[in-house]
Amino acid sequence: MPRQLEQTLKSIAPIDHGLTPAIEAHLDDLTKPPKSLGRLEEIALRYCLATGTTKPALGPKKIFCFAGDHGVAEEGVSAYPKAVTPQMVRNMLAGGAAVNVLVRHAGAELEVVDMGVDDPLDNAPGLCRRKIRRGTANIAKGPAMSVDDARRAVEAGIELAVTAHAKGFRMIGTGDMGIANTTPSTALFAAFLKCPVESVTGRGTGIDDQGLQNKILIVKKALEVNRARLSDPMSTLAALGGFEIAGICGLVIGAASCRMPVVVDGFISTAGALTAVQMRPDIKDYLFFSHLSQEKGHRHVMETFGVRPILDLDMRLGEGTGAALAMMIIEGAVKIYNEMATFSSAGVSQKDG
Amino acid sequence: MPRQLEQTLKSIAPIDHGLTPAIEAHLDDLTKPPKSLGRLEEIALRYCLATGTTKPALGPKKIFCFAGDHGVAEEGVSAYPKAVTPQMVRNMLAGGAAVNVLVRHAGAELEVVDMGVDDPLDNAPGLCRRKIRRGTANIAKGPAMSVDDARRAVEAGIELAVTAHAKGFRMIGTGDMGIANTTPSTALFAAFLKCPVESVTGRGTGIDDQGLQNKILIVKKALEVNRARLSDPMSTLAALGGFEIAGICGLVIGAASCRMPVVVDGFISTAGALTAVQMRPDIKDYLFFSHLSQEKGHRHVMETFGVRPILDLDMRLGEGTGAALAMMIIEGAVKIYNEMATFSSAGVSQKDG
Repeated sequence: MPRQLEQTLKSIAPIDHGLTPAIEAHLDDLTKPPKSLGRLEEIALRYCLATGTTKPALGPKKIFCFAGDHGVAEEGVSAYPKAVTPQMVRNMLAGGAAVNVLVRHAGAELEVVDMGVDDPLDNAPGLCRRKIRRGTANIAKGPAMSVDDARRAVEAGIELAVTAHAKGFRMIGTGDMGIANTTPSTALFAAFLKCPVESVTGRGTGIDDQGLQNKILIVKKALEVNRARLSDPMSTLAALGGFEIAGICGLVIGAASCRMPVVVDGFISTAGALTAVQMRPDIKDYLFFSHLSQEKGHRHVMETFGVRPILDLDMRLGEGTGAALAMMIIEGAVKIYNEMATFSSAGVSQKDG
Repeated sequence: MPRQLEQTLKSIAPIDHGLTPAIEAHLDDLTKPPKSLGRLEEIALRYCLATGTTKPALGPKKIFCFAGDHGVAEEGVSAYPKAVTPQMVRNMLAGGAAVNVLVRHAGAELEVVDMGVDDPLDNAPGLCRRKIRRGTANIAKGPAMSVDDARRAVEAGIELAVTAHAKGFRMIGTGDMGIANTTPSTALFAAFLKCPVESVTGRGTGIDDQGLQNKILIVKKALEVNRARLSDPMSTLAALGGFEIAGICGLVIGAASCRMPVVVDGFISTAGALTAVQMRPDIKDYLFFSHLSQEKGHRHVMETFGVRPILDLDMRLGEGTGAALAMMIIEGAVKIYNEMATFSSAGVSQKDG
C-alpha cells in the first residue's frame, strides 16, 4: 500500500492549459486596454488555472507559520540565540509578531505550528502541535533528521493543507520561524540547484562578514558530510533540511493536491517549496512566490526557477510576512477578473482599427 | 493679496527630520531583526515624517480619478477614440472599471472628477463636477490651455484635497482618465527633466511602431511651438498639460499642505506630481509613488527623481489602480509600526553581542 506522501503526490493533477484561451479572452474583454494590468492579469490567469476554472472563487485564507530548531545553530551561523525560536512562537500566539500584524491586515488567519522547536512550549494556547523532535541534528556533522522523521514532517504539512481546504480555506500561505534556518535552506538550494554555495549564502538575520564566511564553510561541510544522502528529494530534505522546512514542503504538496493556490513566503519557504517541486514538478503551477527576499541567493534561486516574485520590498523576515502582503495583490487580481465590466456591458468603445 | 495657489504652496511645511531617530529607534525595538522588513520600514518612517508624528494614525482613504480630454487626440496619438473618456467616466460611476474594483478591495472611496471632459456628462449621478473646459487645445499647435485655466484646475485639485482632509480622510491617492493623456504627460517630463523625448515616450494604451514615431514627432512639435511658454512650472503646465493633470498637481499640493500622505498612481499622475514638486520641492516628502508603470519613460523619470516605486507589476492603466494597491502596502507598513510587540514587552532576546 502506498503511503500518504506518495499517494498525495500521485493525486496532483497537471493544470489544464486548454482553459487559457477562454481566460485570456475574458481578461481582454474587460474595460481596459489589453494586458494593461500587466502582472495582475498573469496572476488572475494562474489562479484560474490552479483552481481549474474560468470562474475563480475567492474564499477564506490562512497562513501557516511552521517553527523548528536547528542543531546547526551551535556553529554560530545566526545572529540570534536559539531561545528566540520558542520566544517568537509565544509572541506569535500573543499576536505581537510582524506576521500577526500583516495577516490581520490581509484579513487572513494564522496558524502557528510547532514542527520541531527545542522547547516543550507548555501553556501555549492556540499552538498547533506537530512536533517531530526537539530540533534537528547539526547538518555540519551528519543528517538533520532521519528519512522517517522527514516524511512524518512532510505528511503533517500535507494533512494541514488538506484539512484547511476541507474547512473551506481557498488560498493558503507559508511561513517559517527557526533560528539558524537560512543555513539548511541554503544547503538545500545548493544541493538541488547544483550551484556554488557562495551564490546562495546570505546574512540571515544579520551576521557580519566573518559570520558569513563561517556560514559558507558550514554549508559546504554539510554538503560534504551528507554527500551520500543527496540522491533523491526526500533524503536530501532529511539530510540538510529542518522540520519546519519539511512542514512547508508538505503544505505545498497538500495544497496542490486540493488545487488550492499556495503563496510561498521568502527564502526558507522557497526551500520547502523547491523540495516539493523536486518531488513533483507539476506543483510549480500551484505556487505564487510572494516576494523577492533581500536574503542573498533568493534572486539567484528565483531566476533559476524562472519566477518573478510578486513583490520586491527588500524584506528578509520570513514568518509569512511576504505571503500575507502578496495575498492582497492576488485577491485584487482575481477580483479584477470577476468584478470588472466588459466593453459591451459598459458601452465602452474598443480600440481603433 | 496672494491667491489660493501661492498661499497653499507657502503653507507647505518641510518635514521635520528631527523625528527620524525616535521613529527608527521604535522600528528597531520591534520583535524582528533590525531593518528586516526593508521597504515597509522605510514607508512607515516616511509616513510618520509626512504626518509629523512618532505616533502615526491611519484613517479613511480616498482616490480621486481626474478626467479630461485632449485636443492632441486629433493627431492620432492614442489607440482609442476620444469618446472613450466620457464612456469610461460613466463606467467608473457605475462601478465597473478596474479602479472601482481595486478601490473597493483596498477599502477606500473613489471620487470621479470631471476636470475637462469633452462631453456634457448629463445624468451622471455621483460625478464631481469641476469642468474647466471641454478638453484642451492641441498642444502640437499651441498651448493646451490658458494660464488662468491651468490655475483654476490646480486650485480645484487643492480644494478637493483640503476638503477631503477636513472630512477626515487621512491618505489620498491620485488617478487619471483621459484618452491621449500620455502625450501631454510625456511633453511635461521632457520639459521639466530636459531629457530626450524618445527616452520618455511610450505606447500608452497600445499604439504600434508607426504610432510611436508619430507620437514622438508630436511631442517634439509641442515642445517647439510652446518653447516660449516653458519658463516656469505653471506656464509649462498650461502649455503642455491637461485639465486632469492640473487637477492631480493641485491635489498633491493640497494634500501636502494638510500633511496628508498622497499616493501617486502611474505615468500621468507622476506628471502632475512632478509639476507640483517643481512649484515647491518640499512636496516630494509627502508623496508615495505607488508603482513603476510599464509605460516607457516612467523608469527614467523615477530614476531622475531618485525614487523607487512601491510596486512593479507591469501595469499601465492609470485610473488610480496602482495607487489603490499601494495603499494596502502603506497601511500594512504603518500597522507594523503601530501594532507589533517590542523585544522587552514580548520577552524576546535581542541579537547576540
